[in-house]
Amino acid sequence: MVIGLDVGGTNIKGVLMDGNKVLKKTKFRIKSRKDKKIILTQIFDCIEKLRKFKKIKKIGIAIAGPVDFQRQKILNPPNLIALSNLYLGKVIQKKLGIKVIIEHDANCFALAEANWGAGKKYRSVFGVTLGTGVGGGMVVNKKIYHGAHGSSGEIGHITIEKNGRKCSCGNYGCLEAYINDVGIKKIAKDILKRNIDSLRTLDDLAKNGNKLAIKIYEKAGRYLGIGLANIVDTIDPEIIVIGGGIMRAGKFILNPARKEMKKNILSRSAKRVKLYKAKLGKFAGAMGATLLDKT
Amino acid sequence: MVIGLDVGGTNIKGVLMDGNKVLKKTKFRIKSRKDKKIILTQIFDCIEKLRKFKKIKKIGIAIAGPVDFQRQKILNPPNLIALSNLYLGKVIQKKLGIKVIIEHDANCFALAEANWGAGKKYRSVFGVTLGTGVGGGMVVNKKIYHGAHGSSGEIGHITIEKNGRKCSCGNYGCLEAYINDVGIKKIAKDILKRNIDSLRTLDDLAKNGNKLAIKIYEKAGRYLGIGLANIVDTIDPEIIVIGGGIMRAGKFILNPARKEMKKNILSRSAKRVKLYKAKLGKFAGAMGATLLDKT
Repeated sequence: MVIGLDVGGTNIKGVLMDGNKVLKKTKFRIKSRKDKKIILTQIFDCIEKLRKFKKIKKIGIAIAGPVDFQRQKILNPPNLIALSNLYLGKVIQKKLGIKVIIEHDANCFALAEANWGAGKKYRSVFGVTLGTGVGGGMVVNKKIYHGAHGSSGEIGHITIEKNGRKCSCGNYGCLEAYINDVGIKKIAKDILKRNIDSLRTLDDLAKNGNKLAIKIYEKAGRYLGIGLANIVDTIDPEIIVIGGGIMRAGKFILNPARKEMKKNILSRSAKRVKLYKAKLGKFAGAMGATLLDKT
Repeated sequence: MVIGLDVGGTNIKGVLMDGNKVLKKTKFRIKSRKDKKIILTQIFDCIEKLRKFKKIKKIGIAIAGPVDFQRQKILNPPNLIALSNLYLGKVIQKKLGIKVIIEHDANCFALAEANWGAGKKYRSVFGVTLGTGVGGGMVVNKKIYHGAHGSSGEIGHITIEKNGRKCSCGNYGCLEAYINDVGIKKIAKDILKRNIDSLRTLDDLAKNGNKLAIKIYEKAGRYLGIGLANIVDTIDPEIIVIGGGIMRAGKFILNPARKEMKKNILSRSAKRVKLYKAKLGKFAGAMGATLLDKT
């Protein structure tokens, strides 16, 4: 049996799996994301709750932020600053005597969807997570493609509008600046001429046929489509799977994204790429973490 | 011994190689690029000139345009329309009884540079060709990464400025629209307020210290750098190697490109990517074609 955790900026989610079967799920709200001790204690609590009396072979951990996979070190996660530069795997392994592997959460998401979700029939799967941040991960033949420095899939910060909006990273015109939650709220403000509280309201409006809400997602979807076309032109995946909170909007963002993507892909054959919504839900990252391996 | 050809819109270049050694080079100017028969005759002439009395094991052919590698079919090359939808390998194989493999020229360029050129010490090499068109190819562990539909590396048409210049492909703000020869001439016109005849003049001016010429390449280099950062964010190669006619400008375009690229790459570790000028010269595509394999 294997435990998978997903340590985000708000929650720690965990699953206990036996091969392809999820035996148990749990979720902890992080009490203080600025306090390393508290987070570590909560991670151990989560593991304990999942492993009760079971023999655990391995623990995989998805981290919301950049990870040096080779060295198994957390780098500088903007939403988990307290864990910066931590060899988290080593810390846990030392205490529990169980093998631990850590990995960027977008890669774990992509790995899970490629194995059990929307991408399971495909050989090359690009996973995209749309939420507070925008991330991505590439899975080829059911294995994560890490790139030379463990940083492939950072598609939130590809430039799609050189002279466009300032992004949280300090540069201008990044994909994320248009399609994360803040970005979509800005598009909403441009169209509605007022601030909206939450995207949930917008989702409800769109589902009830509100034309302005639909228009907002169409605009966001077109930005997304341009970003996806850049990915396809560069690495030509068989399928792109999109998850994350923004995907509550479903077809309202996915349909215009698909249309714009196909318009912008150069190669006639690469236009055949599939674009699907993720299937596994909020525990995808934790599930994917159970598949991590390092030899 | 293996023959490699590079069939472009203007010339057919060919090499005869014995393993890593180039034994013979030749170049034919295409007499009529609109006439399939003439091009085919010239391809056969080129092969005959190279193979004289030699036993040839294999012929590899680099094509200036999209190729369906799996089916070994030329698709729709804009500069070689006469060869559209041709199973060129089959045609030659049938006549000469020698195994023939065809491939997109940017992939052959990348393969050659990854094996013998600027990328030979590296495991993942992204090759970029800057000329009339802008292309690319990814080589991992000395093998071309084709993508799911044989179309990876089409980086000339990634969008970097959504509301920018119209590109020859019909979309707006593609990388190629700013950094192919026409694109750089447009930047020159914006800065000089007049048309320039050829980029060679501009290269000479820059080399003689002309500040406006240097400024033109700086601007083009910054566009290039943004495009390269998008590639790095997406697939994180170990090294990017740039070739093609535009690279006559050398450091005048490469230095600003490198600076802008590093500024735009998100991941601290991926910023370590190398950016070098190609080493093998004009026969790189033909040389790379000798390495093609299909099993």
